[in-house]
Amino acid sequence: MQLPSKLIENAVNEIAKLPSIGKKTALRLVIHLLKQDENYTQSLSEALVKLRQEIKYCKKCYNIADEDLCQICLAKNRDQDIICVVESFKDLIAIENTGQYRGLYHVLGGLIAPIENISPEQLRIKELVQRVEHEKPKEIILALSASMEGDTTAFYISKKLTNFDVKISSLARGLPIGGELEYADEITLGRSLMTRVRVK
Amino acid sequence: MQLPSKLIENAVNEIAKLPSIGKKTALRLVIHLLKQDENYTQSLSEALVKLRQEIKYCKKCYNIADEDLCQICLAKNRDQDIICVVESFKDLIAIENTGQYRGLYHVLGGLIAPIENISPEQLRIKELVQRVEHEKPKEIILALSASMEGDTTAFYISKKLTNFDVKISSLARGLPIGGELEYADEITLGRSLMTRVRVK
Repeated sequence: MQLPSKLIENAVNEIAKLPSIGKKTALRLVIHLLKQDENYTQSLSEALVKLRQEIKYCKKCYNIADEDLCQICLAKNRDQDIICVVESFKDLIAIENTGQYRGLYHVLGGLIAPIENISPEQLRIKELVQRVEHEKPKEIILALSASMEGDTTAFYISKKLTNFDVKISSLARGLPIGGELEYADEITLGRSLMTRVRVK
Repeated sequence: MQLPSKLIENAVNEIAKLPSIGKKTALRLVIHLLKQDENYTQSLSEALVKLRQEIKYCKKCYNIADEDLCQICLAKNRDQDIICVVESFKDLIAIENTGQYRGLYHVLGGLIAPIENISPEQLRIKELVQRVEHEKPKEIILALSASMEGDTTAFYISKKLTNFDVKISSLARGLPIGGELEYADEITLGRSLMTRVRVK
């Protein structure tokens, strides 16, 4: 794409580095910015720079935080007896958005994946074990993806925690809500049959 | 969506003001930025602020420019005898990308649209007439949308230029390349039948 302005070209190239934004979308965004008030571009840029410079990781649960501890660890009204173990900040947000969970979190920063060269030592599993030792929670929920890596990590963590007096659970697997039976893959369907729930 | 960090919340809100970017996409972009080098966020922000502060409009054709005149008006190798009239910078880029046109442009800044309260005086039609008077081009191409507003504007400009010795043409209308006849709307098909091109 030939652009008749170096300023636009530069802005388009920078925006197009973002994931799932191509040059055409970037140009559309640039044209939008040009139509808006100058203050908006200013506040957008400031928010981004500030975010990148000032963000911290919670010293307790490794969630993203504005201070030394994150808002969830600081909150008084959260159940201190449950720790929900998640892969990433994205998964934490997803669980928060269900509105069903009021306990604490522990962000691993990835899953064990030998193919991608991610070993248990690179994840925050040791820190989790230390938390279990010191905070003595009653339950650990392993909220990990239903994948090979998720299952491996869950298995590894369970092993590491066998000597502690703590309940360990994992997310239920089964048909998604609203999912039609005929379109479910056979592994999900098989699993949901095996772990069927008694109704009466 | 509940976010456990004010910095992230702020960045997400600012990004989500952009067109066709919702809060979920904004959060995805923010998480991406956090994973990248800090320099990238810096250069992205700088490009945006610089763009918004330093951008100018070409004094001749009203294209977006870095200097007083745009790169197209400054280029020595462009045909000075043809002026292509477009609605916006976006349309200019679209025509440049065809690689088929080597003349000059004139950006109107909109189309005549009484419903949206856009009258000919708000567009740069007077400036176009002045250019025709002074630059004496041989041809004016009206590259406007095939809509009611485009046709109205084309008709108005043609009227304004009747007294000048200049050829006026408009873009061909017809079946799009690769478009299947059975899916073409009847107006396009009717028009392409009326303006059929002799092959032999």
